[in-house]
Amino acid sequence: MENTHNFYMPKTNLAGVGAIKDLPNELMPLKLNKALIVTDKNIISLGYVENVEKILKALFISYDIFDGVVHTNPTVSFVEDGLKYFPNKLNILKRDYDFLISIGGGTNHDCAKAIATVVTNGNSIIDYEGWNKVTKPMLPTICINTTGGSGAEVTMFAIIKDNSRKVKMTIGSPKMMPSISVNEPLFHITMPKELTAGTGIDVITQAIESYICTEASPITDALALKALKVAWKYLPRAYENGNDMEAREKMMFANMMAGMTLNNAGLGYVHALSHQLGGFYNGYHGNYNANLLPYVLEFNAVSVPEERIFKIAEAMDIQARSKSQCVDKIMTALKQLFSDLETPSGLKEMGVQEDDIEQLSQNALKDIIALVNPRQGTVEDIMNIFKAAM
Amino acid sequence: MENTHNFYMPKTNLAGVGAIKDLPNELMPLKLNKALIVTDKNIISLGYVENVEKILKALFISYDIFDGVVHTNPTVSFVEDGLKYFPNKLNILKRDYDFLISIGGGTNHDCAKAIATVVTNGNSIIDYEGWNKVTKPMLPTICINTTGGSGAEVTMFAIIKDNSRKVKMTIGSPKMMPSISVNEPLFHITMPKELTAGTGIDVITQAIESYICTEASPITDALALKALKVAWKYLPRAYENGNDMEAREKMMFANMMAGMTLNNAGLGYVHALSHQLGGFYNGYHGNYNANLLPYVLEFNAVSVPEERIFKIAEAMDIQARSKSQCVDKIMTALKQLFSDLETPSGLKEMGVQEDDIEQLSQNALKDIIALVNPRQGTVEDIMNIFKAAM
Ligand SMILES: [Fe+2]
Ligand SMILES: [Fe+2]
Repeated sequence: MENTHNFYMPKTNLAGVGAIKDLPNELMPLKLNKALIVTDKNIISLGYVENVEKILKALFISYDIFDGVVHTNPTVSFVEDGLKYFPNKLNILKRDYDFLISIGGGTNHDCAKAIATVVTNGNSIIDYEGWNKVTKPMLPTICINTTGGSGAEVTMFAIIKDNSRKVKMTIGSPKMMPSISVNEPLFHITMPKELTAGTGIDVITQAIESYICTEASPITDALALKALKVAWKYLPRAYENGNDMEAREKMMFANMMAGMTLNNAGLGYVHALSHQLGGFYNGYHGNYNANLLPYVLEFNAVSVPEERIFKIAEAMDIQARSKSQCVDKIMTALKQLFSDLETPSGLKEMGVQEDDIEQLSQNALKDIIALVNPRQGTVEDIMNIFKAAM
Repeated sequence: MENTHNFYMPKTNLAGVGAIKDLPNELMPLKLNKALIVTDKNIISLGYVENVEKILKALFISYDIFDGVVHTNPTVSFVEDGLKYFPNKLNILKRDYDFLISIGGGTNHDCAKAIATVVTNGNSIIDYEGWNKVTKPMLPTICINTTGGSGAEVTMFAIIKDNSRKVKMTIGSPKMMPSISVNEPLFHITMPKELTAGTGIDVITQAIESYICTEASPITDALALKALKVAWKYLPRAYENGNDMEAREKMMFANMMAGMTLNNAGLGYVHALSHQLGGFYNGYHGNYNANLLPYVLEFNAVSVPEERIFKIAEAMDIQARSKSQCVDKIMTALKQLFSDLETPSGLKEMGVQEDDIEQLSQNALKDIIALVNPRQGTVEDIMNIFKAAM
């Protein structure tokens, strides 16, 4: 029986304090002429774009800046705004830019990947919803990451919100892999508390989901458990004191590992459901995850081998005597952490409407991310998870 | 203080039973014209080259085969023989081949990387000895791996023997990273018992060395411990029954993880010393490692945090009460395994001469691999390690 576990990641991942200084060495041999920077106004005001501009100027690489990404969820309209910089997008010879640089968090990276994909493949980003619909490699893209959590700088996925259908599309292909990722912890210290919490919760969720999903491999297992262990230890410290460089650096590694893991194993129902909430409303991805994770884990537990539940507990410093006690303790510990991080308690508090739950549940089961969840549920099952999380 | 832990690996790593069938999909968008296959006569007789030829023919990619790699250690002369296929090597436009495919184990991959490096950079491979001496990206190279152990298909290093100086040169650069690695366990089942043992021992050595070296990061830690744990469990099974596909597949993952780890953290004295032995004599790399590892570990222990020694023990299912007991038990367990795998016992049995030890020790300290060893030793220290391993 065939059993492939292909492993994709950017060839070059600059990481650690000082990593940004290695970027010129990587860019030089590529002989690039012109970059489009994809970012947002906040990142510009923090000065990170200026840092990158200096590097480009020193290498005589010209650039434009598209600062039209607005948080918290990337939408088709941002992608289309970015594409206006490529009026000749179907004619490779007339293309102005030979690469993209996204600077920011997951929203910015996902927008950049979507723009880079449409530039080389034509049509609209909506045409590429799903897995492996992209036929040509996207325009080379460098992701400079400034947050602790989505892992998007090392993944081949873009999650883009289609407002007309109120869904978040998952678009994924090995042809959408960034060329270079940069994680400079000095760029992470300006994250406000709620973003540190939200992105850190995303790391924890991604690690747990990919560890128990159906496509996990020994490589992703190793990275997922380590990401969980590191985030569990250092997220409270990074939240408490944003200038704690050791905690920031450790969270940066946890973020990279969770990204590497989800990219190659997949996720599950927490993300499948969370994406629908992001499609209907406009809350923080990490906060939706926080409210869903304990209940999805409870639903999944019956299909997850006992050994894996105990390994998750071990990474969270939890001891238990039975599988069911273990699940209970994990749920309790997660809820306690999310409460300590001042996450909104309950989806109701985040504005989710009871009346929307049926539609949200139907959409969730159509998300390709749902396919690798360890236990497959009915619309009723999903509705019950949403209701428990209200 | 700066503290970068950049992480490099091939962007695309096809792995698992059936992985070779994914290769055409990866090659197609690259629009390649002509390949040089770098391999050896044994791999041809096993039929693996024919498998790859079929893929190339179906994609209308023409190719030549250089089968001049001879085991067990890759030498400068093989590299120069391969370079004869590129008579116009300094003129990119006149270059015949647009990529290389190496098929085989570490020796073949290292030869291919060396050829690909000289093709684009000119001069001789000897000019690039050391770290980061290469200025231009090597010709794109695809490594199809048929052994359980060197990890060379995912690394940016080539270890090439210079017979004139009797040294094995370490040549490393991010510009020497393979574009695609392929690990098809079906290609691993023909490994003879001694190669299964030797390459498996290399995995264990690489995992332990990179876990305790000075450049380890949370990412490499996770991968190193998992590689050790998996190899410790499955190597005896793969050795006992080469057709045990589960064991072969697990060893394949362990090999990849050890490769990812050594590539980004480094190795240490076992490899620094082992390379000198490969330079002076012509035994199996894995067998040299087997005889050196226990004594290097004993030498290093004082500089390795207790926690790390206990983690190594845990991965090997060893319990101990103190650090020193732990080191003893690890040494004993390693020696027992290597004896079970019928590894030559003692360097003397492998033909190492007492009279050569001083020269070997001086050379070992010049190897860049020695720099990240957790404890720096004198020539006398290295001589004592060699003597203990005799
Ligand atoms: Fe997420
Ligand atoms: Fe090795």
